[in-house]
Amino acid sequence: MARVVVDVMLKPEILDPQGKAVHGALDRIGLPGVVDVRQGKRFEIEIEGEVDDARIAEVAESLLSNPVIEDYTVRVDD
Amino acid sequence: MARVVVDVMLKPEILDPQGKAVHGALDRIGLPGVVDVRQGKRFEIEIEGEVDDARIAEVAESLLSNPVIEDYTVRVDD
Repeated sequence: MARVVVDVMLKPEILDPQGKAVHGALDRIGLPGVVDVRQGKRFEIEIEGEVDDARIAEVAESLLSNPVIEDYTVRVDD
Repeated sequence: MARVVVDVMLKPEILDPQGKAVHGALDRIGLPGVVDVRQGKRFEIEIEGEVDDARIAEVAESLLSNPVIEDYTVRVDD
């Protein structure tokens, strides 16, 4: 059984209102030194049998992210 | 400058409708062998100066997650 982790984050040039809201909250509760906060999505996919890396990348690009505004990274933990 | 990554996932015993929807979609587009999908949140926090691990854990527990239904992990990349 392999666990595939796909992290999807907004591209750096895209405004991130959720991250901004968290940044404001961190400032208010007094966490020092925070320069930037970005919020994204994390998918954990449990796969039985062989993991087809190319197919996973295809799925991450077409179904799990919006490539116009988001970047993704794929990591396979066996 | 340190990057703190906080991953927040629903606890295993909590139903995850978003993950279920993604699982259904992966089945429909024909990704073989998918056993389970969980969807969570990822926060990337850029911090200047010293990172106070205990304080970060406090923030992850109180502000970034709901400890009744979610687990979090914190990772600091210097």
